[in-house]
Amino acid sequence: MSAPVAIVCGSGSLPIEAARELRRSGREAFLVGLVGSAARDIEAFPHLWVRLGEVGKVLAALKARSVEELAFLGAVTRPDLSDLLPDWGAIVRAGEIAKLFRGGDDALLRAVARLFEGEGFRIVGPREFAPGLLAPKGEIVAPYPDEDARADIAFGARLLAATSPFDIGQGAVVSAERALAVEAAEGTDRMLARVAELRAGGRLRLKGRAGVFVKAAKRGQDVRLDLPAVGPATIAAAKRAQLQGLAIAAGEVLIADRPVFLKAAQEAGLFVFGWPA
Amino acid sequence: MSAPVAIVCGSGSLPIEAARELRRSGREAFLVGLVGSAARDIEAFPHLWVRLGEVGKVLAALKARSVEELAFLGAVTRPDLSDLLPDWGAIVRAGEIAKLFRGGDDALLRAVARLFEGEGFRIVGPREFAPGLLAPKGEIVAPYPDEDARADIAFGARLLAATSPFDIGQGAVVSAERALAVEAAEGTDRMLARVAELRAGGRLRLKGRAGVFVKAAKRGQDVRLDLPAVGPATIAAAKRAQLQGLAIAAGEVLIADRPVFLKAAQEAGLFVFGWPA
Repeated sequence: MSAPVAIVCGSGSLPIEAARELRRSGREAFLVGLVGSAARDIEAFPHLWVRLGEVGKVLAALKARSVEELAFLGAVTRPDLSDLLPDWGAIVRAGEIAKLFRGGDDALLRAVARLFEGEGFRIVGPREFAPGLLAPKGEIVAPYPDEDARADIAFGARLLAATSPFDIGQGAVVSAERALAVEAAEGTDRMLARVAELRAGGRLRLKGRAGVFVKAAKRGQDVRLDLPAVGPATIAAAKRAQLQGLAIAAGEVLIADRPVFLKAAQEAGLFVFGWPA
Repeated sequence: MSAPVAIVCGSGSLPIEAARELRRSGREAFLVGLVGSAARDIEAFPHLWVRLGEVGKVLAALKARSVEELAFLGAVTRPDLSDLLPDWGAIVRAGEIAKLFRGGDDALLRAVARLFEGEGFRIVGPREFAPGLLAPKGEIVAPYPDEDARADIAFGARLLAATSPFDIGQGAVVSAERALAVEAAEGTDRMLARVAELRAGGRLRLKGRAGVFVKAAKRGQDVRLDLPAVGPATIAAAKRAQLQGLAIAAGEVLIADRPVFLKAAQEAGLFVFGWPA
């Protein structure tokens, strides 16, 4: 039997869903849960709880289990320097770590990945070990977007391509080829909540269902790390913002808790579309 | 004596400040106040109150006063179609107006300007009739930004140049070369409030004063129309977000209520810098 794939687990259900998908494909997962981020449910699988920065402890556990492949899944609150320096494993690498604090989340994750690669691990992405979590192409939840919605999707895709070099959250809400909101450090759910508030407060005067949430990974992003994700909470937020639907980049966006996500979109009357179709 | 410059007045003090600057230069203003947006103070000058879309009424008043030059100043809530069609002046142009409802605020304003140009008026911008309202270059309020802040300003300037073709509000908050927030339909004050909330909620973990608010006009924007503005409320919002300072594009950003703005920045310990210096 092959060695387990280790998954460093941030918040949400995706790490556990990936572990289940691995098991269905005949492999085992070893879940490294980040205290304060990962869900308790990881304990249903072989696991280890660590704090951010306990690099020495992680390395020892992975070597003891002959792990060769390492993945990162789920969201982690951006750490501050004191979180990253609790043990000697990190302290000896502090020079490298200090460099991470300029630039966006991408730079931070890439450097953490490089640190583990330097120790001989191969970093794997969801496309390799859990492809069933990714958005497919075309109509995911009906209806198929109409001409206006497709124009908004194309506009959003161009906008996200333009902001991509700046390492900001790759999401936007577009209505009638106008960007209503652009996502940065606040994250998708808060951006969608903002659209709901702007509509309720009268600053955005739109009639009925209007606007598409467009989401993609950053161009040139390391697709093994930190792919964007949507889930049932995204549907709830899009419904409150009275959007028409969600357009997510096929093969680039993870869908968490898919059966619940799909049912929620259908019940809310929101289309979900994997672009380009 | 030359004919007055007509100023279509949205909210805030800028229309009145422009009228005062015109008077100091020996000319008179005729203020066209948009009901629901313009301040009562416009009544200190020759004025006319109109609702959005009362184009016929405006045209008649301008012609009666031999007005040749027309300006637009202050913010207006984006109208919906029913606001734009109350009188025959607008109704005959409805075909043209319907086109405005795809695309951003820029497209809307440009089309309104074209409509008046078609009637023989010359559209003038603040650079021509009230240059004293624009941000100067270099240090406006001390201290001069340090090396890190200058790197953030340069990052923000590049980001705004990239989002510029998409006609979104040209503002961002940048810290350590990371975009914390990008402004779209919510406007500057709400974007700054978001940064304050993200910091208070622990989602953004920054120590002490951090981040620069960077503001510019859109590239290729018609600088006669809808230049961005900052004012005392911007300082209050930047202070709540615990920023280091404001970097506004020289010659592109209007400063409302300048004496109060400058005093508030000094008291809050925020630098104000006109870039490029």
